[in-house]
Amino acid sequence: MIQSPLHTIRLRLGILCLTLALGILSFSCNKKELAEVKTEIKNQKPILSLSTSEANEIKELLSTNEVIQISFEQHKNKADNAIKNSIKVPVPKDPGGGYTHEKHKRNYSDMYSAGISYIITKDTKYSKFVTDMLLAYAKMYPNLPLHPKSKENHPAGKLFWQGLNESVWLVNSIQAYNLVSDAISEENKTIIEDNVFKKVAEFISVDSKKTFNKIHNHGTWAVAGVGMTGYVLKDQDMVDRALYGSNKDKETGFLKQIDMLFSPEGYYSEGPYYQRYAMMPFMLFAQAIQNNQPDLKIFEYRDQLLGKAVTTVLQLTDENGAFFPFNDALKEKNYLTSELIFASNIAYTYYKDSSLLPIILEHNKVSISGAGLEVAKALKDSEPKAYKKVPLLITDGNNGTDGGLALLRMSNGKKNEKITSVFKFASQGMGHGHFDRLSLFLYDGKQEILQDYGAARFLNVESKKGGRYLPENKTWAKQTIAHNTVIVDQTSQFNANVKASSKVSPELLFSNLKDSNLQIVSAKEENAYEGVKMQRTLTLVKSQTTERPPFIIDVYAIKSKETHQYDLNFMYQGHVMEANFEYAKENTLSALGTKNGYQHLWKLAEGKSDNNFATLTWLNKNSFYSISSLISSESEMIFSRLGANDPNFNLRNDASYMVRENDKKDHVFVNIIEPHGNFDPKLESVQNPHSDVKNIELISSDNNYTIVKVTFKNDDHYILMIVNQEHDPHKKHKITIDNQVYQWTGNYNLKTN
Amino acid sequence: MIQSPLHTIRLRLGILCLTLALGILSFSCNKKELAEVKTEIKNQKPILSLSTSEANEIKELLSTNEVIQISFEQHKNKADNAIKNSIKVPVPKDPGGGYTHEKHKRNYSDMYSAGISYIITKDTKYSKFVTDMLLAYAKMYPNLPLHPKSKENHPAGKLFWQGLNESVWLVNSIQAYNLVSDAISEENKTIIEDNVFKKVAEFISVDSKKTFNKIHNHGTWAVAGVGMTGYVLKDQDMVDRALYGSNKDKETGFLKQIDMLFSPEGYYSEGPYYQRYAMMPFMLFAQAIQNNQPDLKIFEYRDQLLGKAVTTVLQLTDENGAFFPFNDALKEKNYLTSELIFASNIAYTYYKDSSLLPIILEHNKVSISGAGLEVAKALKDSEPKAYKKVPLLITDGNNGTDGGLALLRMSNGKKNEKITSVFKFASQGMGHGHFDRLSLFLYDGKQEILQDYGAARFLNVESKKGGRYLPENKTWAKQTIAHNTVIVDQTSQFNANVKASSKVSPELLFSNLKDSNLQIVSAKEENAYEGVKMQRTLTLVKSQTTERPPFIIDVYAIKSKETHQYDLNFMYQGHVMEANFEYAKENTLSALGTKNGYQHLWKLAEGKSDNNFATLTWLNKNSFYSISSLISSESEMIFSRLGANDPNFNLRNDASYMVRENDKKDHVFVNIIEPHGNFDPKLESVQNPHSDVKNIELISSDNNYTIVKVTFKNDDHYILMIVNQEHDPHKKHKITIDNQVYQWTGNYNLKTN
Repeated sequence: MIQSPLHTIRLRLGILCLTLALGILSFSCNKKELAEVKTEIKNQKPILSLSTSEANEIKELLSTNEVIQISFEQHKNKADNAIKNSIKVPVPKDPGGGYTHEKHKRNYSDMYSAGISYIITKDTKYSKFVTDMLLAYAKMYPNLPLHPKSKENHPAGKLFWQGLNESVWLVNSIQAYNLVSDAISEENKTIIEDNVFKKVAEFISVDSKKTFNKIHNHGTWAVAGVGMTGYVLKDQDMVDRALYGSNKDKETGFLKQIDMLFSPEGYYSEGPYYQRYAMMPFMLFAQAIQNNQPDLKIFEYRDQLLGKAVTTVLQLTDENGAFFPFNDALKEKNYLTSELIFASNIAYTYYKDSSLLPIILEHNKVSISGAGLEVAKALKDSEPKAYKKVPLLITDGNNGTDGGLALLRMSNGKKNEKITSVFKFASQGMGHGHFDRLSLFLYDGKQEILQDYGAARFLNVESKKGGRYLPENKTWAKQTIAHNTVIVDQTSQFNANVKASSKVSPELLFSNLKDSNLQIVSAKEENAYEGVKMQRTLTLVKSQTTERPPFIIDVYAIKSKETHQYDLNFMYQGHVMEANFEYAKENTLSALGTKNGYQHLWKLAEGKSDNNFATLTWLNKNSFYSISSLISSESEMIFSRLGANDPNFNLRNDASYMVRENDKKDHVFVNIIEPHGNFDPKLESVQNPHSDVKNIELISSDNNYTIVKVTFKNDDHYILMIVNQEHDPHKKHKITIDNQVYQWTGNYNLKTN
Repeated sequence: MIQSPLHTIRLRLGILCLTLALGILSFSCNKKELAEVKTEIKNQKPILSLSTSEANEIKELLSTNEVIQISFEQHKNKADNAIKNSIKVPVPKDPGGGYTHEKHKRNYSDMYSAGISYIITKDTKYSKFVTDMLLAYAKMYPNLPLHPKSKENHPAGKLFWQGLNESVWLVNSIQAYNLVSDAISEENKTIIEDNVFKKVAEFISVDSKKTFNKIHNHGTWAVAGVGMTGYVLKDQDMVDRALYGSNKDKETGFLKQIDMLFSPEGYYSEGPYYQRYAMMPFMLFAQAIQNNQPDLKIFEYRDQLLGKAVTTVLQLTDENGAFFPFNDALKEKNYLTSELIFASNIAYTYYKDSSLLPIILEHNKVSISGAGLEVAKALKDSEPKAYKKVPLLITDGNNGTDGGLALLRMSNGKKNEKITSVFKFASQGMGHGHFDRLSLFLYDGKQEILQDYGAARFLNVESKKGGRYLPENKTWAKQTIAHNTVIVDQTSQFNANVKASSKVSPELLFSNLKDSNLQIVSAKEENAYEGVKMQRTLTLVKSQTTERPPFIIDVYAIKSKETHQYDLNFMYQGHVMEANFEYAKENTLSALGTKNGYQHLWKLAEGKSDNNFATLTWLNKNSFYSISSLISSESEMIFSRLGANDPNFNLRNDASYMVRENDKKDHVFVNIIEPHGNFDPKLESVQNPHSDVKNIELISSDNNYTIVKVTFKNDDHYILMIVNQEHDPHKKHKITIDNQVYQWTGNYNLKTN
């Protein structure tokens, strides 16, 4: 049942009173309460994200609160520009990027800004604009067939080639309508509600039932649009379908989506780039639910899942604020995006999580809503500072059992900068997922050191396939070779088959991210290649005797009964400085392989060595990095560069360094990855340009334990003992090798001199 | 004759009084003068860059003036660290980068910091450190042979493998000695002066007479060291040799260097990267001259040449402050370098040029000297702002007749950002010069769009040939193909022969950088290739009807009686977006040629077109750029990438795009270079991703005139008329082509719709 407006107001005033009682404001609560009640009763509308009293307060703050002013002006300018031009509601014709597609997108965005402008200024030119446009839609929409450019096997829209855009149109337009509805005649309201909103909602929730009931972000946009429309049209049935699915059996719908699409820590399995996008309908609809059905306690739902989801997506960013480029992701995208303005504003308002304020301050923009008002007031005394990033283990899967992610983070010795190593052992992440299990990402401060390619796509760039995913996204970016992990027999994990890979996930074995000198994570993947079991253990270690930045011990153990070729790839960023082995560069370049992404790499050089470890050192933005790899005289070190079989210059020319082992059954890759020096062009001085690794030894490797030892040039040594099965933090272990006894308790041990 | 200290003080007080009289301070001048005189007489020492009274004032300001504090603390920390360790003056043994080399460099730097620390704190631990170290040098130096690692054909040092470092040692050490001399016993003074400074000065000015008399920056360091030593040792003969050359005939020496090494605008022919380095001895010695022989009016010399030189080197930087990478230059180097702290402080003090303050503020550091004191006081009320860069024509050669440089600068439409196009038609620039005549550099804001490679060198990186210039500096970076200009028959200008190219220079034909809508420069080069005459005219044009950023009309006219192959190369920075012609990418890569730099380019693709112009569009940091080139069906468009024949990964993997014309005698390349759009990842919007060029026509080209017409898609057109000979800004021209009359006055005309 929809709560009565009075009930809602009482509850909100209760919260307000509590806040006041807590001493934030010091005058009498009772008087204020009464005054507020009167105003609110008079000004109860709209009901989605902004009450009239909040709008009035925003209006008052326009002259004194800069962020409110900036944020509102953007809407007003946009609305003013839109009003200058005549209203155009063209018959849908073009696909994504084409005129009618872009125009209908523009229309909902203009209507939303005009709605905001009206509620703040009460100038009826804005409400008239929205009304006229909706009346134009009312004339056209009821007779629209499916969009002419819709595609088989892809949910169609009517205004747009795909249904997703139709849902986004509804989410925006219903808000615009709600914001101006007190200025629309009853007659026009009927026309608009009957011929636009009911029809669109019906199209989305009934005609497109399959998408509406999907546990997927397309489904979230659909239920959000329909649910918000239900509140505005006072159609509780519509609302209930959005909340509980078409059959109202709770097997689908918004709550089920919250249950299924996130892990317990709020990770959305498509990855942060898509999570950013999905958070908008989740948070907007949640806010509407909270305003209309507060009893549902939507922000408390599933142990405050929505709040965790916002925090998690923000933590899944590098020091530029850019999302870690898991799966199909554009690397340019960062947390300053508009979706996260809405989401972070709402999260701050309902969870009072002040750790969000630095990002909101960085946005320098708030949503014009009750939530935006709240944060704008909270920002007043905030000083700019960096959003605090922490080491985090984030599980994947709605039960938290489908693998996950580890964010290893440790100071690099410079102020406010960290070494960040991301270890990805998550599930496939649906259709946008990459075949990247057990892959590694490395950042030093704001710099990418070992990179994931991200997506092969130039968003909205017409000349690049209309801005869609490029063919190379499939032939390169999704393939295992495009990631910093092991490729078996030059094929991708699961033979790049999404269906197969979606059935199983990697498994977290153990982790500890709480030790200030050592962060460790171990995970296994036993399904990606038939008959091949892989376990990777990443350890970020702070030296106890030197000032050098933390280094990584990377132990990648593989077991198989058959012989295979194993390629451990590193997509390093930077310029080769030196190697401790000989390599021969090619005089003419050919592709490294013929398929599975290998066809896109030009093979530049190959090296071998009689040394027992191979070190490659490179320079990235004035800092030096090295990978030292345990090898044998049979190992091949291969340098490549991206760009082969790329007829339209779609790929970047990134570098790859690979350690290749041929004809192996069981094998353990041991790598020490060190940030270790820098070049100061001002002082013309160079510090520590060489790797400090003196030796790497694999002391033991069997089903039970892997033990590796690394020795540095100053004779510091580190012995890492890893438990490979029956993990238990309290179990005692003891093993004797070459008369040396190794004993410890728990899943790992790091012994230093 | 050396001026008496009293005379000096009187003169300086005179200036002070004048300043006071001008109302900067409001109390009585006379009283102040007397007070000052007393103090100064008491505290007249030292005599190079800092008086005791200035030192006292600095000491007083330490608690209130932040920049003084920061700057002094750096010296003090350095000196304190140095004192902690025992003094080591090793027998010279190692070449550049080796232990003894680095140690002797460190020693002079430590002594200088200790000298500064002493004069400010009067703590004798600092003067003792300097004294003890100089005494250690006194024991060793008199018996030193030439350095064991010195090279034939390269001026040798004794402490260092090359004489240059010896001079730098002297410049620093004599200042350190001077700063602490009141704390040294007469006995020790005699030892130090006789066995160190006289010996070093003799070695530099007598034994190494050839370098000492060289008109070259090595000569400047030499005369600066010896001249400053002369002032401290009160040896006017030594000073005079420094000022007027070994023979005191003014044919060489400091003044002759000022005459010869700079153009009238203060351009130093080796280019800004080396000018930065040379400015230090020029300005330090000038300051010492001003303090000891003010009658010489050194800062007035040659129409205030030294002041112009400082301004010019600062203007020769991009919007990151990095020096334009002419000749052998490291791109990382910018105007925050220590040499320019000294130089800009001194220039501000003597020329009162407040335009320098933003840079000094950016340094956040001043020299601890009279000049540093003056700027630190001036900075107090300064607000950070960008150093103002202006369009500039800078001639080369001491008479200004050896070609030059044009810096075309126009707003790109964004706040505080400019399109900067550098046109280089300068002389060879000695041994570090590149074969780059008539080359073009393009920047958009802080981004390099069309780049010069700079030097192939990793300064001080041991693994890269000990930090010296790499072999690829000669085989690639110096070659003509590494620059954005025309290469004839795949050979470099002057066959890459420095001697030949040093004899002749390009010639400026005409220019106008003062028009706010059009900046134009035309220059010719007729000696670089036998029998080939080249004229390039660059025009930066602001559209009169649209908001698009300024574009470039680039007209490169070549005349020859023989047939040649002409390659116009563009080292573009960014990712290819689209081309209006077909191209076929190679399946295996080979080098584009076998020598003259061509051997370093992998040929990626070749295109042809029946269209009369070829457009290539690329994306650089979210902005779009296009080059549209007038072509015929025979023209070849060639894509390459650097990296071939580079056995040690010494080269970057930069991109090249080339328009090739085969079997041509006369030919005119016409190119329109447009910045034209951008991608906003936050809004996911793309503006103007396509070139706006609709047509390019060469209307006429003969000995007298070149006329080109470019038409844009909105039908804006621009007709550029260029006069090719008998340049005269007042001459009237008239020519009829296809019944169309073109008439104008002066060397060029740009006609728009």
